[in-house]
Amino acid sequence: MKKSLIALAVLAAAGAASAQSSVTLFGIVDAVVTVGRGTVADRTQLTDSGYNSSRLGFRGTEDLGGGMSASFWLEAGLNNDNGEGDPTNVNNQASGTGAASAGRQGLTFNRRSTVSLAGGWGELRLGRDYTPQFWNLTVFDPFGTNGVGTTQTLNSIITGSTAVRASNTIGYFLPGNLGGFYGQVQYYMGENVQNGAATEDDGNGLGLRIGFANGPFNVAFSTSRTEYAAGDVRQSNIGGQWDFGIAKAMAHYSRDENGAIDGKGWLIGGLFPVGAGEIRASYSRYETDAAGQPETKKLALGYVHNLSKRTAVYTTWARVRNSGGAAQALGGSTTGVNANSSGFDLGVRHSF
Amino acid sequence: MKKSLIALAVLAAAGAASAQSSVTLFGIVDAVVTVGRGTVADRTQLTDSGYNSSRLGFRGTEDLGGGMSASFWLEAGLNNDNGEGDPTNVNNQASGTGAASAGRQGLTFNRRSTVSLAGGWGELRLGRDYTPQFWNLTVFDPFGTNGVGTTQTLNSIITGSTAVRASNTIGYFLPGNLGGFYGQVQYYMGENVQNGAATEDDGNGLGLRIGFANGPFNVAFSTSRTEYAAGDVRQSNIGGQWDFGIAKAMAHYSRDENGAIDGKGWLIGGLFPVGAGEIRASYSRYETDAAGQPETKKLALGYVHNLSKRTAVYTTWARVRNSGGAAQALGGSTTGVNANSSGFDLGVRHSF
Amino acid sequence: MKKSLIALAVLAAAGAASAQSSVTLFGIVDAVVTVGRGTVADRTQLTDSGYNSSRLGFRGTEDLGGGMSASFWLEAGLNNDNGEGDPTNVNNQASGTGAASAGRQGLTFNRRSTVSLAGGWGELRLGRDYTPQFWNLTVFDPFGTNGVGTTQTLNSIITGSTAVRASNTIGYFLPGNLGGFYGQVQYYMGENVQNGAATEDDGNGLGLRIGFANGPFNVAFSTSRTEYAAGDVRQSNIGGQWDFGIAKAMAHYSRDENGAIDGKGWLIGGLFPVGAGEIRASYSRYETDAAGQPETKKLALGYVHNLSKRTAVYTTWARVRNSGGAAQALGGSTTGVNANSSGFDLGVRHSF
Repeated sequence: MKKSLIALAVLAAAGAASAQSSVTLFGIVDAVVTVGRGTVADRTQLTDSGYNSSRLGFRGTEDLGGGMSASFWLEAGLNNDNGEGDPTNVNNQASGTGAASAGRQGLTFNRRSTVSLAGGWGELRLGRDYTPQFWNLTVFDPFGTNGVGTTQTLNSIITGSTAVRASNTIGYFLPGNLGGFYGQVQYYMGENVQNGAATEDDGNGLGLRIGFANGPFNVAFSTSRTEYAAGDVRQSNIGGQWDFGIAKAMAHYSRDENGAIDGKGWLIGGLFPVGAGEIRASYSRYETDAAGQPETKKLALGYVHNLSKRTAVYTTWARVRNSGGAAQALGGSTTGVNANSSGFDLGVRHSF
Repeated sequence: MKKSLIALAVLAAAGAASAQSSVTLFGIVDAVVTVGRGTVADRTQLTDSGYNSSRLGFRGTEDLGGGMSASFWLEAGLNNDNGEGDPTNVNNQASGTGAASAGRQGLTFNRRSTVSLAGGWGELRLGRDYTPQFWNLTVFDPFGTNGVGTTQTLNSIITGSTAVRASNTIGYFLPGNLGGFYGQVQYYMGENVQNGAATEDDGNGLGLRIGFANGPFNVAFSTSRTEYAAGDVRQSNIGGQWDFGIAKAMAHYSRDENGAIDGKGWLIGGLFPVGAGEIRASYSRYETDAAGQPETKKLALGYVHNLSKRTAVYTTWARVRNSGGAAQALGGSTTGVNANSSGFDLGVRHSF
Repeated sequence: MKKSLIALAVLAAAGAASAQSSVTLFGIVDAVVTVGRGTVADRTQLTDSGYNSSRLGFRGTEDLGGGMSASFWLEAGLNNDNGEGDPTNVNNQASGTGAASAGRQGLTFNRRSTVSLAGGWGELRLGRDYTPQFWNLTVFDPFGTNGVGTTQTLNSIITGSTAVRASNTIGYFLPGNLGGFYGQVQYYMGENVQNGAATEDDGNGLGLRIGFANGPFNVAFSTSRTEYAAGDVRQSNIGGQWDFGIAKAMAHYSRDENGAIDGKGWLIGGLFPVGAGEIRASYSRYETDAAGQPETKKLALGYVHNLSKRTAVYTTWARVRNSGGAAQALGGSTTGVNANSSGFDLGVRHSF
């Protein structure tokens, strides 16, 4: 989420297009001691991305003149506790991410790899990117879907391969000058061979997001469908925030569907500035209509202390309560069915 | 193929060598909607490298004084539709590239990873690099061996692991001041243990290329042999181009041999400047003496529109006709034996 | 080991922390022709890292004011002969590095991936890093544990997954102003689930290093223990060097323990400046108390010729003598039990 920190002067490209351009090397290294406690097994780790997702990226923009620009964005996930990269998913289906071999995952631009053309009419973006349905959850989560405090409404078990990102996307974003209205639509392809098989459209999908921000107020809605022969996946959510100055309140509500299973959840929380720091708090719930009506409820509290714009130390504590057959555990621990689990993060986030 | 776009000032290296030096971060992000049609199955994809191969690289040169320089070049292939890298081949044999796990291919410097010493005598280059036999095909293909228009004369099934690049190379390039003559020789090693096995020299090879360019005229010849106990692979080709101003005409002829199988092909084509754009056209054929004398013939037409030196939109259409038992299909489609197939690209290429 | 060569001006980060900061792109590309001879099989390769380990890295420091700073360091190993990266180990156990698929190893930040906070009190460093026990060997080896001349006292077979580096480390370094005293302590985690299994603490460990450098004199001691249910691994060593001006003499002694097997070894050697170059020489031995008391003895001689601060050509010759059942071979060759083997390196190292 952190912005560019280095801008390199580009050698003047001779010819028609001599306008200003830049390439930016950027990243985040976030290391965190995470302690998870559950009724079956506890765990202590030095892990990553407790506050912001660790990453390394390259991006740039070229001014094409006439209000047009071209840009690229390559961003790789990073496990800075052990040096590995992250895998990606090539076809928006379970088959798009194969088996891992420990210690061997190299850098992929799994977080984003796109090229864009933009103008007064908006932005056309091609490649791998966040899905609108995920983006609308994470921006209205005080913990930004990172660390032990992550909202319960992000349930990848229900929402599958396109819960967070999609590959082979063609996206369109509205321009920024619509009086507070913003929006995007994203089409993505599973790229299966069209041979008449029932699964030939698996991994194809469409997501959209539309919102309105004005002064302290921001609200947005998102909905999506990804096709699978075994049952389509649908995600819809609405979220909003109000900045009261002394606090920024946030809430969202989500409904998911994966074939015959429905899930729904909500979050309420906020961010409270305190000097050079910020207190974070949220309460979130998620339940599905699978056998037993499994439900999880999380309370999360945290504090971030900014040493600078780029460097922060932080801590988060969270507890999840399971019922209806759920057994979610935090911080890498293992807990019993309908038992509780707690997680604790203490880390440092440095961006560049 | 695109040139450096960023040059970073190097902190003066104290001591004897204080001459100018630079390191360059460079790359190409090329995204393309590709539609393939065949008699068995069609396919539509957002893929990459329809005009130029997507890549991310780092390179630099150090002036050593006295006309000498040292340089390095690290260049990784990029699947920007999904964020994956590309595999490499470690030993110039089929065993040098193992099985893939979907979504997990990290960045490798498969395209090039070399260190060089250069002077008035030429350049000594060590590492992984293009083979001369490939280079002599791609420079005389109007489509640069990218996208659905790629020349039929590049037949990796016949020419195997060193058709495009080789690892463990020791290369020598003639200096640039020979009145238009240019050339290179490249030795590469399979690096097998020398234990008397029949395959102990598999993957060893030698390629050379020699050419002459003067004004509008450029012609070059290349030949190579890679050793395999199962049958050596030989590739030879000759290509040329003439720039008439209103068009650049290109042609090449190639002969390949893989053990008992011989293949041969040719291409004729051209590039036609049109305002800020360029029309591309080629006709290429390839046939082998395998059972049935399989033959493929491709007609390819395209247009590239340059939005700037760095950014272009482009489209290509191509059709391949199969005979003699061939069943090549374009754009990820599948076609029947002796049936036709067509491919269509519509993309954007941005370099940095 | 080479220092930063590029420093990029960081766009002033608005706000409290506007002090100087920099991000550095750095690396080494070292290519070497290696010839190994053994009684069973010889081998010739173009390989990498004969003088310094090939690498590509990104690092930077942010001044936080008040004597405090934050920094990051991401450094990937590089096989520039074929373009592959190197694997890492995620849990300091044998299970932390899985099976390889040839040609597919992408870049990982296996060499180092850390974030640090530093001040007058020293440095706190989190992530993957060298272990103190390794660092104390490599700095007192004239060949820096690279190439055919590498000291015999680095025996990863005995010392296992944490012989060189560890993941999930929490490290502390003494500040640099202690009148020549220096030191570090490093704790690392295997991160296993705490479920009462005998192996639940496998991969946890602690290493420390303490030294004193003054003028021409430098001596340091290191000791470590990594826990495994199958038998703890212990490494201890002491090393020193004296710079006589016409030569820098080095020696070290090491004792290792892996469960029931004990190993010990020593090295004596030196570096001899000769004009723009340096002669390197060492004699090292290692023996274990495994059945037969296997022992290896190596004599290594080399010369490095600096073309600049960044670029050098070098050659090394080494011979290993095996006894007591040992069969170590150099340069990728294979040799018989109790037979000898020799290795020869001829290479170029370029750093940036």
